[in-house]
Amino acid sequence: MLQLDLSKAFTLIEPGPVVLVTTRDGQKDNIMTISWTMVMDFTPLFAITTGQWNHSFAALQKSRECVIAIPTVDLLDKVVGIGTCSGRDTDKFAKFKLTPVRGKAVGPPLIKECLANLECKVIDIVEKHNIVVLKAVAAYIDPSRKEKRTVHAVGDGTFIVDGRKLDRRDMMAAKLPSGV
Amino acid sequence: MLQLDLSKAFTLIEPGPVVLVTTRDGQKDNIMTISWTMVMDFTPLFAITTGQWNHSFAALQKSRECVIAIPTVDLLDKVVGIGTCSGRDTDKFAKFKLTPVRGKAVGPPLIKECLANLECKVIDIVEKHNIVVLKAVAAYIDPSRKEKRTVHAVGDGTFIVDGRKLDRRDMMAAKLPSGV
Repeated sequence: MLQLDLSKAFTLIEPGPVVLVTTRDGQKDNIMTISWTMVMDFTPLFAITTGQWNHSFAALQKSRECVIAIPTVDLLDKVVGIGTCSGRDTDKFAKFKLTPVRGKAVGPPLIKECLANLECKVIDIVEKHNIVVLKAVAAYIDPSRKEKRTVHAVGDGTFIVDGRKLDRRDMMAAKLPSGV
Repeated sequence: MLQLDLSKAFTLIEPGPVVLVTTRDGQKDNIMTISWTMVMDFTPLFAITTGQWNHSFAALQKSRECVIAIPTVDLLDKVVGIGTCSGRDTDKFAKFKLTPVRGKAVGPPLIKECLANLECKVIDIVEKHNIVVLKAVAAYIDPSRKEKRTVHAVGDGTFIVDGRKLDRRDMMAAKLPSGV
């Protein structure tokens, strides 16, 4: 995995892919599947919606750190599997044969098999709305990966795979943040 | 446009498409392009990130209503155009040849040319984070539309078009909300 400039990190979340979020409760790593994410600015800040209904939430709340990992379509069955069992009784790294890799700024691990990973600090928890505000402090991408297509959850058990890419950089030039 | 059951409305936002948000300041309709959205629950509540930097924000804040319209790939140049000019000096419905249609629960108009429209009430504005919390109160879909592929902004001026759909309903059956 290569370090990715933080000014580009929001472009991994902005398209709205299903992501994996790793946490660490001090001793044990866990992973959850999340589709409820939002870019908040280019620094980059992100929001995720989560709460007590996710076993990971307690570790997230206590450690105030997580990693957002971006899986691709070849990992879909692992992503769905992770989302349908609980860290309460399952070691998800072992069960889904994923490799935890220690990052440099946070305790929760990166996931080696993913296309990209964002080390994040919890900036705020808006309890009223179950919104956790995250700031990415380091970002990585695996440029050697052939499969780069992410997947988007519809929410009814189906998923949309990335199709073709359209370029509107000329039309948008005046509006793009610097560094992307 | 046909009415869509509100229990299915979150499935329009969950995949993370670029959306259009209409507002009305009492006299004038406006449209903004937004990619920073998040599902918050199945009722459905949504978050969008916006603030004073969007001309629409003042109307959204005052009227506490908006419509989220879901455009498809054939509308991409309008979507990008809407995102790169301001309602301050532009009548975007006229400029981009879009048709405002009055909804039943809110003042801002639906956009006839879009695949789907969600009438929304502002539930809360988390000023500290520029997050507006919306609740959809009515939803519509145009089943006669042939082009159903939405687009996902990368944030660097490129866009990803929906590709093929994968079905994991069996794996996810226990986790799906009722009604989807």
